[in-house]
Amino acid sequence: MTNLGLPVPPGFTVTTEACQAYLATGREPDGLAEQIAAHLAALERARGKRLGDPGDPLLVSVRSGAKFSMPGMMETVLNVGLNDASVVGLSRQAHGGGGGDRFAWDSYRRLIQMFGKTVCEVPGEEFEHALDEVKRAKGTTNDLDLTADDLRGLVGAYKQIFKAHTDREFPQDPREQLDLAIRAVFASWNAERAVLYRRQERIPADLGTAVNVVAMVFGNLGPDSGTGVAFTRDPATGNQGIYGDYLANAQGEDVVAGIRNTVPLQELERCDKRSYDELLDIMARLERHYLDLCDIEFTIERGKLWMLQTRVGKRTAAAAFVIAGQLVDEGLIDLDEALHRVNGAQLAQLMFPRFQLDHGIEPVATGIGASPGAASGQVVFTSARAVEVAGAGKPVILVRRETNPDDLNGMIAAQGILTSRGGKTSHAAVVARGMGKTCVSGADGIDVDVPRRRFTVAGQTVVEGDVVSIDGTTGKVYLGEVPSTESEVVRYFEGDLDPERSDDALVRAVHRIMTHADGRRRLAVRTNADTGADAARARRFGAEGIGLCRTEHMFLGDRRELVERLILARVDDDRAAALAALLPLQRADFEEIFREMAGLPVTVRLIDPPLHEFLPPLEQLAVDVAVAQERGEDVAKEEALLAAVRRMHEENPMLGLRGVRLGLVIPGLFAMQVRAITEAAVAVTRAGSVARPEIMVPLVGAVQELETVRAEAEKIIAEVVGESGVEVLIGTMIEVPRAALTAGQIAEAAEFFSFGTNDLTQMGWGFSRDDVEGAFFWRYLELGIFGISPFESIDADGVGRLVRIAAEEGRAARPELKLGVCGEHGGDPDSVHFFHRVGLDYISCSPFRVPVARLEAGRAAVQTNGSDSR
Amino acid sequence: MTNLGLPVPPGFTVTTEACQAYLATGREPDGLAEQIAAHLAALERARGKRLGDPGDPLLVSVRSGAKFSMPGMMETVLNVGLNDASVVGLSRQAHGGGGGDRFAWDSYRRLIQMFGKTVCEVPGEEFEHALDEVKRAKGTTNDLDLTADDLRGLVGAYKQIFKAHTDREFPQDPREQLDLAIRAVFASWNAERAVLYRRQERIPADLGTAVNVVAMVFGNLGPDSGTGVAFTRDPATGNQGIYGDYLANAQGEDVVAGIRNTVPLQELERCDKRSYDELLDIMARLERHYLDLCDIEFTIERGKLWMLQTRVGKRTAAAAFVIAGQLVDEGLIDLDEALHRVNGAQLAQLMFPRFQLDHGIEPVATGIGASPGAASGQVVFTSARAVEVAGAGKPVILVRRETNPDDLNGMIAAQGILTSRGGKTSHAAVVARGMGKTCVSGADGIDVDVPRRRFTVAGQTVVEGDVVSIDGTTGKVYLGEVPSTESEVVRYFEGDLDPERSDDALVRAVHRIMTHADGRRRLAVRTNADTGADAARARRFGAEGIGLCRTEHMFLGDRRELVERLILARVDDDRAAALAALLPLQRADFEEIFREMAGLPVTVRLIDPPLHEFLPPLEQLAVDVAVAQERGEDVAKEEALLAAVRRMHEENPMLGLRGVRLGLVIPGLFAMQVRAITEAAVAVTRAGSVARPEIMVPLVGAVQELETVRAEAEKIIAEVVGESGVEVLIGTMIEVPRAALTAGQIAEAAEFFSFGTNDLTQMGWGFSRDDVEGAFFWRYLELGIFGISPFESIDADGVGRLVRIAAEEGRAARPELKLGVCGEHGGDPDSVHFFHRVGLDYISCSPFRVPVARLEAGRAAVQTNGSDSR
Repeated sequence: MTNLGLPVPPGFTVTTEACQAYLATGREPDGLAEQIAAHLAALERARGKRLGDPGDPLLVSVRSGAKFSMPGMMETVLNVGLNDASVVGLSRQAHGGGGGDRFAWDSYRRLIQMFGKTVCEVPGEEFEHALDEVKRAKGTTNDLDLTADDLRGLVGAYKQIFKAHTDREFPQDPREQLDLAIRAVFASWNAERAVLYRRQERIPADLGTAVNVVAMVFGNLGPDSGTGVAFTRDPATGNQGIYGDYLANAQGEDVVAGIRNTVPLQELERCDKRSYDELLDIMARLERHYLDLCDIEFTIERGKLWMLQTRVGKRTAAAAFVIAGQLVDEGLIDLDEALHRVNGAQLAQLMFPRFQLDHGIEPVATGIGASPGAASGQVVFTSARAVEVAGAGKPVILVRRETNPDDLNGMIAAQGILTSRGGKTSHAAVVARGMGKTCVSGADGIDVDVPRRRFTVAGQTVVEGDVVSIDGTTGKVYLGEVPSTESEVVRYFEGDLDPERSDDALVRAVHRIMTHADGRRRLAVRTNADTGADAARARRFGAEGIGLCRTEHMFLGDRRELVERLILARVDDDRAAALAALLPLQRADFEEIFREMAGLPVTVRLIDPPLHEFLPPLEQLAVDVAVAQERGEDVAKEEALLAAVRRMHEENPMLGLRGVRLGLVIPGLFAMQVRAITEAAVAVTRAGSVARPEIMVPLVGAVQELETVRAEAEKIIAEVVGESGVEVLIGTMIEVPRAALTAGQIAEAAEFFSFGTNDLTQMGWGFSRDDVEGAFFWRYLELGIFGISPFESIDADGVGRLVRIAAEEGRAARPELKLGVCGEHGGDPDSVHFFHRVGLDYISCSPFRVPVARLEAGRAAVQTNGSDSR
Repeated sequence: MTNLGLPVPPGFTVTTEACQAYLATGREPDGLAEQIAAHLAALERARGKRLGDPGDPLLVSVRSGAKFSMPGMMETVLNVGLNDASVVGLSRQAHGGGGGDRFAWDSYRRLIQMFGKTVCEVPGEEFEHALDEVKRAKGTTNDLDLTADDLRGLVGAYKQIFKAHTDREFPQDPREQLDLAIRAVFASWNAERAVLYRRQERIPADLGTAVNVVAMVFGNLGPDSGTGVAFTRDPATGNQGIYGDYLANAQGEDVVAGIRNTVPLQELERCDKRSYDELLDIMARLERHYLDLCDIEFTIERGKLWMLQTRVGKRTAAAAFVIAGQLVDEGLIDLDEALHRVNGAQLAQLMFPRFQLDHGIEPVATGIGASPGAASGQVVFTSARAVEVAGAGKPVILVRRETNPDDLNGMIAAQGILTSRGGKTSHAAVVARGMGKTCVSGADGIDVDVPRRRFTVAGQTVVEGDVVSIDGTTGKVYLGEVPSTESEVVRYFEGDLDPERSDDALVRAVHRIMTHADGRRRLAVRTNADTGADAARARRFGAEGIGLCRTEHMFLGDRRELVERLILARVDDDRAAALAALLPLQRADFEEIFREMAGLPVTVRLIDPPLHEFLPPLEQLAVDVAVAQERGEDVAKEEALLAAVRRMHEENPMLGLRGVRLGLVIPGLFAMQVRAITEAAVAVTRAGSVARPEIMVPLVGAVQELETVRAEAEKIIAEVVGESGVEVLIGTMIEVPRAALTAGQIAEAAEFFSFGTNDLTQMGWGFSRDDVEGAFFWRYLELGIFGISPFESIDADGVGRLVRIAAEEGRAARPELKLGVCGEHGGDPDSVHFFHRVGLDYISCSPFRVPVARLEAGRAAVQTNGSDSR
């Protein structure tokens, strides 16, 4: 913490280098003891007391000084220096009104508890149990009702607990306490969870941490002492004002642990106006220094205010936008800086439907907000039942202790998923995020009993069919249906709200920041849309063209029969007839899309999936035929179909006959599509609009493939376009690793590249998304193999390197080459920054993600360094 | 052709630049006509005659001067300058004995035929038909029996054919003939097959060709004239001496076209000793100049010898080795150069069984030697029948017009494949090479009638069940069983022949060259072997360790039941029990292999395939269960198995739960294998041998995977190794593209990399080998997308780039990193050169390919540049 002339207790720092030496050798480095002794002596001189002196003890706190807080790392030990002797000295120090005794023993029991738990790994519950028992014996729930004697007794009990778990007495030597606490901070750098976290984040393992040793100030010295936390604005809504909690006669974590009820910070004004005014003054100074909402920890020791810690405060998504807007109004930051202060993940949260703010229903449990959204539905406990009830048109919430790959169908059928175990990287969480489903995981207040199809929570029993509601952002779980509401932000994007006149501060802030992002960004934002309706919505959301129009759906529905004829054709004439029948249907589809995207580029991908996907699935067909044969039915026709399906069956269809390979093997298929696209563009243009088609060849791995398709396409285009003035570009997906590695060659035959980062991730990692995401990604996240699924956010080191190679070498070969991305990463905040840095021209994502992409593209453009992206 | 003071007819060259200008603009470049005129005038002056002069005509030949001969390119037109007038002048020129007339009309009809066919695309058969008819009318098969009048009549008929196809008269202007012929050479640069060829070979499209115009010399001027081809050594065996064919009173392609029977070159000595001696002298000079076997085209015009062309001669594999040895003996080349003169493909050919040389059976047809080997068996015409007969233990040859993916099972069952259509890149050829099956393709003398299950050839009918023999090297087809013999070269490698004492020149030559290769090569050669027997054989063949020992087979056979228990285990205890039972079995397998490879490194790959491969296949099981249910049988157990198989089913198993992913998800699996390997190594070492195990983790894509496996393995190894002194290395396959792209990170946790270029090719290209090779590779080869399957020879631009990146960045991170390759490319000649250039330490291939790899590694080491490898 920067000391801005604030009232901060004196102390010293043990350097990071000492920690590194300790981690490297496993023992305390030479000279460290002397160094600590020198520091300590200086502190003792300044305070005029000696550490743990029996007569007039100096006490200190020991905290980690790590640059980022890491899971599993040790945070703080207070009251270091107390022992059986100095507790008496402390009591004398505190003197006055007999309260000194109580205070001293309270501080001592806190030391044993905190030291035991964090330095010596004694289970924390045991201390809590012992405390509860003493309170129960006194018939109170308030720890202030405990007397000095009660607390002295508790110290005895705590010492026994300590000894039972550590095989030694609680250390009486103050210097030993200090050394052990410092060493424990060092050692916690290698705590299992910290190691995992660093592996995930690729933080160097040997960085180490400093340790801060600071003289204690006490909030538990009586009613004129206390401790509190404060926010400089409302972290929930962003509204201006003073927010916080205060607890008199308390220490350290009491405020957040909820041992007693805190009071709103405003009440401090009443009981200690001087401290309150000083705090307000400090908060204003801090905001001017940090130029942002700050959160603050402070202690008042007998009417004197001490600042313990401050950092930029956490806030909700809505507050982030509102505060950023306010700070601009207040002249503290400019709009570029405001863009830094919000992010796409927050905007995405604001676009989900959410429970109404004033519903007044109390949650019965809180888990982890694992995948955002708000969902209500009947409780079901099995995948089969989920499918059944959802099939009857009723929304369901699938409730499980934890999910596994067998639950996949149920998860698909459900509105939301609720589990009692597992965190943000559990199977349920990962799969739900992949599906865009609402999920609350690890709600451990819930006791799930699958065999009896019920769960209990807060003393209530919920049975199959009862309705619950879950909030995937906050992690809250409600009984019954909570009314939900469409997002105001979405209404704004849809054009249903005039932001200039809205009385919603959030909508005004979002509008202002989005407008600035659009002005700053260099990346264009397109959308992935296969229909006119999707295209229209995306355009309202700000899309500047279509980056990916898949043509597969144009082979479904009524058209399936034609497609089957096409696939099963054994002679050229049958195939040509089927293609001829498909041509006008596809042309009509394209006309609609070109009309909706008038004037903007539309990238159409030629058909990509293997053709057998349009035939019945093999296993079911084989079973049907075998059973019908067993019954003696005539199955000649089905057998012929089965033979065809079997002939076309592939072991690994993702790596089989699809994409450009189909175009090169099936005569006339690509030609029909190229003709339909070009004819549609000419028709729309002749009708007075402007169509800008870009034909994209999928799955190209070698320039020769593209050259061959291009040669055929150019002939058709030249013939159809005639004098209409329509311009048709031809380019390719870069989705096969080899395409990226030979991009310099491929650019010679391509007017644009569009990175298909989904397939590039699948082939680059060797992951079939359908097979691996549910099967073992949870395990990989748990082991820290990766910090986030590479399908959620682009893997910059591996897959991203392919993108970079292709962008650089493609542009070197053809400087005017247009570069875009149409994988799902186009809507992921971190990935957008990556694509900005590699120099792409545009990103493309699903219509709903277009605003997120616009915002992040703006943020990427004002970013002065890459520090906030992976 | 370098003129070494040889008797070469005078002429001139039209430059490549003229061709390039023509190809760029589509019309003759300015100044070309004048340039040709000036050259021609000089030639006319030198010869004292004018082109096509009616009185005393100069005639010329027009030939492509392309640096490499390309399929589809135009080669030669002779006798340019003849027309209705100059034919009379030519006759006068030739004078003497009335033969002049016959000669002149013979030359004229040859011009119309050759010019029509190559310059104007008149179908060649029509000319041949007309000639045959005239001969039939005269009752002769010898064209020398035709008189001047016959030939004059033929010229009339040829002119009509020409007009019918070109809508114009045969051009009478000699200069027009010359210009058209030159332009036709230019234009043939863009002939379809030439374009394809260049695309395959990535030869620049705008290189163009020069054109050589040379004064004619005539071999058809009477019995003291003639034309021939000669080899300076026997191109079949390599034996020293004069080999060749001579045909008196003939021109151009008559010798190779087989119009009349040629005579052995030796007979020339009898009829024209002066020319014969001169030819022998020239051949000796050419050998000294080219330092190699030369083949020669020459013409004798009335007793004067003219040299038309020479180049280094083609030869059989055996001859290549024998000649290389001889040239060393003769002091013409050194052993390094001898290594250049042979290659691994030739050595591989010599290692197949072959038909006995002296079998005396005449072939009934000749096709393309598409996949080497010698195979005999019963003829079958359908895939089903092939499977049936082969299932009864009888060898079969599958005969088809051409094959398609439906024939796959039949091809697997057959000893060999014979098709009447298609070339080296047909479906049959590509798939057969992939399987290592003998194949003759495109034997167009065979007329296949599948419905009647027979084929006819040379007037004979062969029905299903008759025996035929096919030679996949020469493309020859025989009726009946031809006795075959094991390769002497294999007997030498097996150690059954003492090369120093062998009277087989081939064995001596192979031994000498292999010894030199071993002395020169920098790459070590290991083998892929999963059993002790394979390891022992490979060691005899020169393997210096095992580069890939797969452990999958150790899960098959009797052990399948244990593996099923392991897979279906729902609780840890069941799984642990199954693993405990597998441990001693695996250990015994490893002990055997370590003993066979005593002292040499053995790389063991931990289990790689997805576990469901060890369960029954889904489709069959589903059908069995459904049918049994229909019959009302009890299928509870089968249903449970089906449910498990379905749960483990993967859409794309190649990209699913396999390799290191299994190791991280299935508790104890890798640990059991690591323990088995280490215990086996310790046991073998304690028994007095030396085991050098290297544990290889498959499918790693991220260093974190390897770190996690390594941490567990190191604990087990430390515990088992104890004081035994056994050293165990831990490394990884580089087979996932991302592994190559992040090799610098991965090297931090790996002591060695082994490139799995099969999977790297599959993922780099997005090709599932099983699915794509038969389904569309034939089409890709036909279209020139690639020149050779990337599974046969490494794709240097794409997949090879990944190898290069990983090798460089891996070594940069860990200089002592061992680098090898264990994909099938390790046995492919071109690929070996690539691996040498990238700086790998070793290659590993199947036992049988070890000698090929040794030879190519030696060749790569003496290569001064990369010109002869792709």
